[in-house]
Amino acid sequence: MSEDTLIEELLAGKHRALARVITKIENRSPGYRDLVSKLHEHTGNAEVIGITGSPGAGKSTLVDKMASTYRDRGETVGVIAIDPSSPFTGGAVLGDRIRMASNVGDMDVFFRSMSARGSLGGLSTATTDAVKALDAFGKDKIIVETVGAGQNEIEIVKTADTVSVLVPPGSGDDIQMLKAGILEIADIFVVNKADMEGANRTVMELKEMIEMRDASPMAGHHGAESLVDTADNGGTETETGTDEEGWQPTVVETIAKTGEGVEEFLGAITEHVAWLSESGELEVQARQRYEAEIKTLLREDTAALLEEELSARGGLESHIDRVLRKETDPYTIADELMAPIEDCVGEARREP
Amino acid sequence: MSEDTLIEELLAGKHRALARVITKIENRSPGYRDLVSKLHEHTGNAEVIGITGSPGAGKSTLVDKMASTYRDRGETVGVIAIDPSSPFTGGAVLGDRIRMASNVGDMDVFFRSMSARGSLGGLSTATTDAVKALDAFGKDKIIVETVGAGQNEIEIVKTADTVSVLVPPGSGDDIQMLKAGILEIADIFVVNKADMEGANRTVMELKEMIEMRDASPMAGHHGAESLVDTADNGGTETETGTDEEGWQPTVVETIAKTGEGVEEFLGAITEHVAWLSESGELEVQARQRYEAEIKTLLREDTAALLEEELSARGGLESHIDRVLRKETDPYTIADELMAPIEDCVGEARREP
Repeated sequence: MSEDTLIEELLAGKHRALARVITKIENRSPGYRDLVSKLHEHTGNAEVIGITGSPGAGKSTLVDKMASTYRDRGETVGVIAIDPSSPFTGGAVLGDRIRMASNVGDMDVFFRSMSARGSLGGLSTATTDAVKALDAFGKDKIIVETVGAGQNEIEIVKTADTVSVLVPPGSGDDIQMLKAGILEIADIFVVNKADMEGANRTVMELKEMIEMRDASPMAGHHGAESLVDTADNGGTETETGTDEEGWQPTVVETIAKTGEGVEEFLGAITEHVAWLSESGELEVQARQRYEAEIKTLLREDTAALLEEELSARGGLESHIDRVLRKETDPYTIADELMAPIEDCVGEARREP
Repeated sequence: MSEDTLIEELLAGKHRALARVITKIENRSPGYRDLVSKLHEHTGNAEVIGITGSPGAGKSTLVDKMASTYRDRGETVGVIAIDPSSPFTGGAVLGDRIRMASNVGDMDVFFRSMSARGSLGGLSTATTDAVKALDAFGKDKIIVETVGAGQNEIEIVKTADTVSVLVPPGSGDDIQMLKAGILEIADIFVVNKADMEGANRTVMELKEMIEMRDASPMAGHHGAESLVDTADNGGTETETGTDEEGWQPTVVETIAKTGEGVEEFLGAITEHVAWLSESGELEVQARQRYEAEIKTLLREDTAALLEEELSARGGLESHIDRVLRKETDPYTIADELMAPIEDCVGEARREP
């Protein structure tokens, strides 16, 4: 099937075409870039909801309940579950969910797992692109589900309009983990298994943390990142215009197994989306997201170009030999390899 | 103080110079690259030990006990503790440890925290460089301590010859987390707080996991990564020559608070280092580490070059406007911006 036909069929609502497009995106098959390029103009109508939290917090069950509730309301749903399993041991999570998805047996919920087969960096681009496919297809709600709260999971979940973080009750450790980065990106905290001991304390602790954050001048999230990985550019990140009437993260309680609290959770999402729209933050976020997307693509393309260049120049083996013999060192080699590239990039701009 | 004097004083064993060099590395101050370049030829004598594990596993206490045990044996120790706190909420972990360090009051243990002020990617380079400074200084043992087991923490801890992973007893969740990537990099598992309930089960579960891994043909770790973040290059990673006589991770039990088991843990590290040396794996690892280091530097330098280029070309704002108006899309923009760079890099190689 040609790319144009594939796009046509996807836009016409054929789930098979949607699945094939996402597979091409996931595998970075030849031509996938053109596909995603062409999808872009058809996007912008879906509501994207991100869910993250440590393993065992009940994400899968909650997402299933969310999906069926939306479906009952007549809305179509796409779910992308990011499986962080390593290539060595991976597969369990993914397998379980595919089984679950087939039990739903209803194509109004399109469920798709993507695994971290390569680096998680690449997965963040693949997620963004898969969301575009679901959006162009016409799904009303797109749920992006990731396990864990590491830096890369944060990058992935940032593709969402509304970021929900699941917190298991009574877990002092988890609150500590939350401090390390996740608080800044959460729009809604969901204390799931709210019938368990310690749930009230967890809700209280979360509310305290939110109040403390609000008192801090550094509060802010969703900032577009710089291309440069330096130790000194992180501190300069500031938020534009949400200081005064900023979003204060909501804390909701759910019992995903029974469905209790799910309506309230969806209500909180609706409120957040309304705030995004009224405050103008929706466009701010869109701009930041496109900026991050372009920069990520440029970074990937440049890395690929560099890898090609290294092969064309005979690889690094002989350089590494010299480093081992202490005749040179990694920084000197990097400088030597970069010099001609820096020269020619500068020249290309000055004499177009 | 000039860079040459700084290096001279560091090599002469002045802790003040060591601290200043590490500060320059951490801040990426002008001239830090030259400093690290010059340190390289003086490195290669230290034993580098990595410690990771979730918060509350008892890493700090264990590292302190390790350091004092080494010191009692007449060996000098450097500790680098990586603080993953976000720029917004960070600081608690770091503050606690500095207090601890001053209690030791003995410069034979040089303790230094580095925080993730920028991206964790940059921190991994800074850690490698700080290890070089401690190595050139003449520290016998260098302990690199990171919290958590995310992909970035794994990158950081890979700078070590021997990677130890702390596992709190009785934590089913943690075993699940371990499956997602950490098993492949652990040379030694330390079940700390071994007097707690569930410790025996955790030891058993870990041993089972190790046996399962050994039965899998995909077993392997410490692979050098590619520059290219694609979804399909992760699966091709293979290990060189450790299949037959590979290292089988050891499981040791400690009670860091009382010091119980610490001698046995240090014994396991010594065994691993002996294996590295006898098997030839030490050189294999050194090669992989230098390759990864050069590639990381090239990636960072290229990203910086690109960022400069984007500014020189007037930034991305006008491009983002067009993306928002659906006149173009991120992939098309990336292609347009990359085209002249690709051309000139190719030409520079063909006509030197």
